Amino acid sequence: MPSSNSFSTNMRIRFPVLAILLQVIIIILFGIFVRYETKSNWSNPSDGMELYPMFQDVHVMIFIGFGFLMTFLKKYGFSSVGINLLIAALGIQWGILLQGFWHMKSNTIYNSIESMINADFSTAAVLITFGAVLGKTSPVQMLILTIFEIAIFVCNEHLVVNVLKATDIGASMTIHAFGAYFGLAVARILYRPGLKNGHLNEGSVYHSDLFAMIGTLFLWLFWPSFNSAIAKPGEDQQRAIMNTYFSLAACTLTTFAFSILLEHRGKLDMVHIQNATLAGGVAVGSCADLNILPFGAMLIGSIAGIISVIGYKYLSPLLASNLKIQDTCGVHNLHGLPGLLGGIASIIAAAVQVNSTISAGMQAAALGCSVAIALVGGAFTGLILNLPFLGQPPDQNCYDDSVYWEIPTEGGAPLEGNMHYEEDSNKLNVEV
Amino acid sequence: MPSSNSFSTNMRIRFPVLAILLQVIIIILFGIFVRYETKSNWSNPSDGMELYPMFQDVHVMIFIGFGFLMTFLKKYGFSSVGINLLIAALGIQWGILLQGFWHMKSNTIYNSIESMINADFSTAAVLITFGAVLGKTSPVQMLILTIFEIAIFVCNEHLVVNVLKATDIGASMTIHAFGAYFGLAVARILYRPGLKNGHLNEGSVYHSDLFAMIGTLFLWLFWPSFNSAIAKPGEDQQRAIMNTYFSLAACTLTTFAFSILLEHRGKLDMVHIQNATLAGGVAVGSCADLNILPFGAMLIGSIAGIISVIGYKYLSPLLASNLKIQDTCGVHNLHGLPGLLGGIASIIAAAVQVNSTISAGMQAAALGCSVAIALVGGAFTGLILNLPFLGQPPDQNCYDDSVYWEIPTEGGAPLEGNMHYEEDSNKLNVEV
Amino acid sequence: MPSSNSFSTNMRIRFPVLAILLQVIIIILFGIFVRYETKSNWSNPSDGMELYPMFQDVHVMIFIGFGFLMTFLKKYGFSSVGINLLIAALGIQWGILLQGFWHMKSNTIYNSIESMINADFSTAAVLITFGAVLGKTSPVQMLILTIFEIAIFVCNEHLVVNVLKATDIGASMTIHAFGAYFGLAVARILYRPGLKNGHLNEGSVYHSDLFAMIGTLFLWLFWPSFNSAIAKPGEDQQRAIMNTYFSLAACTLTTFAFSILLEHRGKLDMVHIQNATLAGGVAVGSCADLNILPFGAMLIGSIAGIISVIGYKYLSPLLASNLKIQDTCGVHNLHGLPGLLGGIASIIAAAVQVNSTISAGMQAAALGCSVAIALVGGAFTGLILNLPFLGQPPDQNCYDDSVYWEIPTEGGAPLEGNMHYEEDSNKLNVEV
Repeated sequence: MPSSNSFSTNMRIRFPVLAILLQVIIIILFGIFVRYETKSNWSNPSDGMELYPMFQDVHVMIFIGFGFLMTFLKKYGFSSVGINLLIAALGIQWGILLQGFWHMKSNTIYNSIESMINADFSTAAVLITFGAVLGKTSPVQMLILTIFEIAIFVCNEHLVVNVLKATDIGASMTIHAFGAYFGLAVARILYRPGLKNGHLNEGSVYHSDLFAMIGTLFLWLFWPSFNSAIAKPGEDQQRAIMNTYFSLAACTLTTFAFSILLEHRGKLDMVHIQNATLAGGVAVGSCADLNILPFGAMLIGSIAGIISVIGYKYLSPLLASNLKIQDTCGVHNLHGLPGLLGGIASIIAAAVQVNSTISAGMQAAALGCSVAIALVGGAFTGLILNLPFLGQPPDQNCYDDSVYWEIPTEGGAPLEGNMHYEEDSNKLNVEV
Repeated sequence: MPSSNSFSTNMRIRFPVLAILLQVIIIILFGIFVRYETKSNWSNPSDGMELYPMFQDVHVMIFIGFGFLMTFLKKYGFSSVGINLLIAALGIQWGILLQGFWHMKSNTIYNSIESMINADFSTAAVLITFGAVLGKTSPVQMLILTIFEIAIFVCNEHLVVNVLKATDIGASMTIHAFGAYFGLAVARILYRPGLKNGHLNEGSVYHSDLFAMIGTLFLWLFWPSFNSAIAKPGEDQQRAIMNTYFSLAACTLTTFAFSILLEHRGKLDMVHIQNATLAGGVAVGSCADLNILPFGAMLIGSIAGIISVIGYKYLSPLLASNLKIQDTCGVHNLHGLPGLLGGIASIIAAAVQVNSTISAGMQAAALGCSVAIALVGGAFTGLILNLPFLGQPPDQNCYDDSVYWEIPTEGGAPLEGNMHYEEDSNKLNVEV
Repeated sequence: MPSSNSFSTNMRIRFPVLAILLQVIIIILFGIFVRYETKSNWSNPSDGMELYPMFQDVHVMIFIGFGFLMTFLKKYGFSSVGINLLIAALGIQWGILLQGFWHMKSNTIYNSIESMINADFSTAAVLITFGAVLGKTSPVQMLILTIFEIAIFVCNEHLVVNVLKATDIGASMTIHAFGAYFGLAVARILYRPGLKNGHLNEGSVYHSDLFAMIGTLFLWLFWPSFNSAIAKPGEDQQRAIMNTYFSLAACTLTTFAFSILLEHRGKLDMVHIQNATLAGGVAVGSCADLNILPFGAMLIGSIAGIISVIGYKYLSPLLASNLKIQDTCGVHNLHGLPGLLGGIASIIAAAVQVNSTISAGMQAAALGCSVAIALVGGAFTGLILNLPFLGQPPDQNCYDDSVYWEIPTEGGAPLEGNMHYEEDSNKLNVEV
């Protein structure tokens, strides 16, 4: 944004004022509305704790998984993992409030471990969106985006789950497609023509790609918990675990195969391995607890891996050049397309009557409204983020921690980087 | 210590003799005293296993959390994560023995998964102390410190829990304040005037700060398990989980806000993000299972984040210059001050009769004796560690793995480091 | 292999054809044979879920533990963690099929969470083997090796568990010794005379050693779950947890002691800390659920640490020079020797009648057949892998990701590596 270049990126007053204001408001609202769930409706003292290991798995995905997955950028690791923590810490508080408002009993929100899982989920949508605009937004912008996106997210979630009564246990539609298309809409509004030929800092170094694999693997491992945490205990929950495990395993093989196949020198691309291997977890989400049989889960996963690699290879450049959508982490390929696939798979599953309680029409409506609300909500939020005093970095400082962070300047990677990276500016052009 | 400079840091005989001697003594004591807990007092075969997922969460905090949190130093990562493992491996064995001696039945220690959680806890105190003297002690010194500190720790713990009958479920006082003030006392005794202007190696590089975030995040994630693992199952335990989750989330926002506010260029400081974001977990510890309401937990967390950032920014330099306490990791700001806050919060909670079984006087006595015993015990242990033949590194070799480790010398970071880091010596002076 | 030098390492056609063919075959076989376990034989709806936290611990060991443990090589991190993921994703699918074929009911494999743990286990054997040939094989070779090794593994497992009825709860023999000797046999067949003086790329850099510690620590932490996951619930399972915890703790102390003792400058060697600290988990495996008493577990662990360090220091160079076995990660010292020790410990435990249901003769037979089948099976598989069109890298490209991966070329570690690492070629000679 040319306009942003003329504004200061110094956060010293704006960020603390906003962050503390939000925290004070949240504490007041919690004081008024939020209480602990009590044991009055438990049958034994351990009730509620059976979800705790799954909660912790999801928690690891949100903070370690999403956080480290984005550390692939060579000079943006502090922001990836740090602003991810900030967003998630705000998001879980805000999510508990807003999700709680839909389920109050006598004007009180009773918080349980299940509420904490759902709050983590609402945060996931924001972190997916964060991936689309990574490196191009200020921490102030991300606080505001978190507030708006979760508000819109919980409305869409309510619509899909309670009004349409669609099935989406692993949230292919309500989290993944929603978060991705919300992010694409924001990215479209925040389009930067100055970055259309790539950016000096937009790329990885060897060790940043290894840090990113920490994120990838914890996401991959705990995805069965993500897709089954709030499923009905018993067969449904265990099917959700197994289907996700199988889908991810199959997806990994097709991702490796297509990553090599589509590169003329027959080599693996780390971007695909870090991201597309996870598409199977996204795509099987809506159907995870249905009786789609293990081989059905594998089929979904296999297709998800292929679609995701193709998306990274061919679709992302087109989105950037034709639709002016610069999607930093390629969330469209990891969450958007596989989220659509997940929704479509649930429509097919409903059509073939895998389970008599779900309807193809309602699944289609759920998918449609998730994408539509995300696009409209994202565009609206993007317009707000475009306000010039929010500290958006100028083009030349994108993908660079040093705008918002104290960086170890001597002997550290960034300085050393500056010396080595100078010839790096046309890397994107050379490689694509 | 000038005296230490004249002694060899070669560990070849001293370390193996001490380590093997300790291991042999421990095996003999285990042979005499330690047996498996049996199912005679279980009601069903899975009894005991309900604590296992929480044990593993705490286990991850001890070995990954504390270990990686200290890898922020650019040339001391092997020691941070390696000596952390060594201390913890010794500490859990020693802790099971010494904690077991207070609870023997017919001269036998019956070991259960709960014993393993408590042993991990006793180790946490030592690892906090390790943070205060990180980079300035030899592995031999750390073995000796582990033996003494755990012995003193279990006595204080017995006093607080069984004599004073104070509440301290998350151990704000008995682990965090205790470990921190023990460490400050040791650091005072081991004061090195030669380091008063900082040290060439005392600082981070870009990727070492990312490694440290692995530690931060796993501590942050699993802190609810730390504070609730040994709570009474049911509502108490779930309150401990929720309060910790809320306290940490609120603490994270105030940490980010104050980190930016206190830096005149309005930038985030990685030291604060790595450490102060965790202060909410420490501070809510003593009250975690009490009915302080979610917003009460958030208030405690918010204050903890603010105190901790202010501590890093203003108090640590004063401690170093005025009190001659060089606290490498700033454990006073992460564990000391928030531990005091936790104790004070528990006094207030008792005063306002949150729970009729706890007494403000006993909480105050518990806080007082934890700090006092830590200071005296730490000073005593420091005097022992000062014995000249324990291999303490000379000033110029502080914060440097190569004193005690084989280092990949060519192409690796340290050599490369030497070339780049030379101008780095006044970094501390410049920044503070 | 001179022969391999004349063949292309371009994987563009060979890899995708093989990977997709395998995935299609697996999907068809799953379609025919694999169904979800149903609740007909459960007593309550949570049945099956009690294993889920342990499954996730094992899952972390397979993907994070093994994957990152091998990232110590300075230029082979992508392959270590990436091909580890590929092998494991194929292995768990193939393992479920082949292990399932031994336990079909009416020609159907009913998949449960326990099946997924066992599938993860079968994958562990392959990943151990991968460690022996790390850096010297192509992804195509590893797919083929996975298919063959798991087929042979499940036969040996069936023989040991169901025919010999030996006890091997933590799989010292059937996974660790088996995987290691299988790998040594493959490595012997794939012997490369050109690497007998070491290789420019065969070594670590500072940060690659820290990445490896992520693997080490997650393996160390979750090993109690590995050794107890499929144990009988109740006292047996809890003994397996405690024995593994004690064995690892004791092993860690003796590893540190002997690492320092055997190095004439009295310094720690990262190779030992990364690997030998885990030998206690391997060695206590066969006996883990037996009543060997805590001090018995510590004795086993102490000896395992000593044996493993001695193996790395003295035996590995001899294996390479005399037996022409180039064992990249020293799996013989981490899995082979401690696996033998575990088998021997189980023979002794049987001989002294720790448990009347096990027989010393059957334990000895189980150990013997595990090693023998591994050696023969590994040699056979090695001959197949030697086929010239499988894309094996030429000597000069060993231990180098860039043969099979797109690497960030500018500013990243590998390029920088080339500049710094040139004098590094005789490192092995200098150090040994």
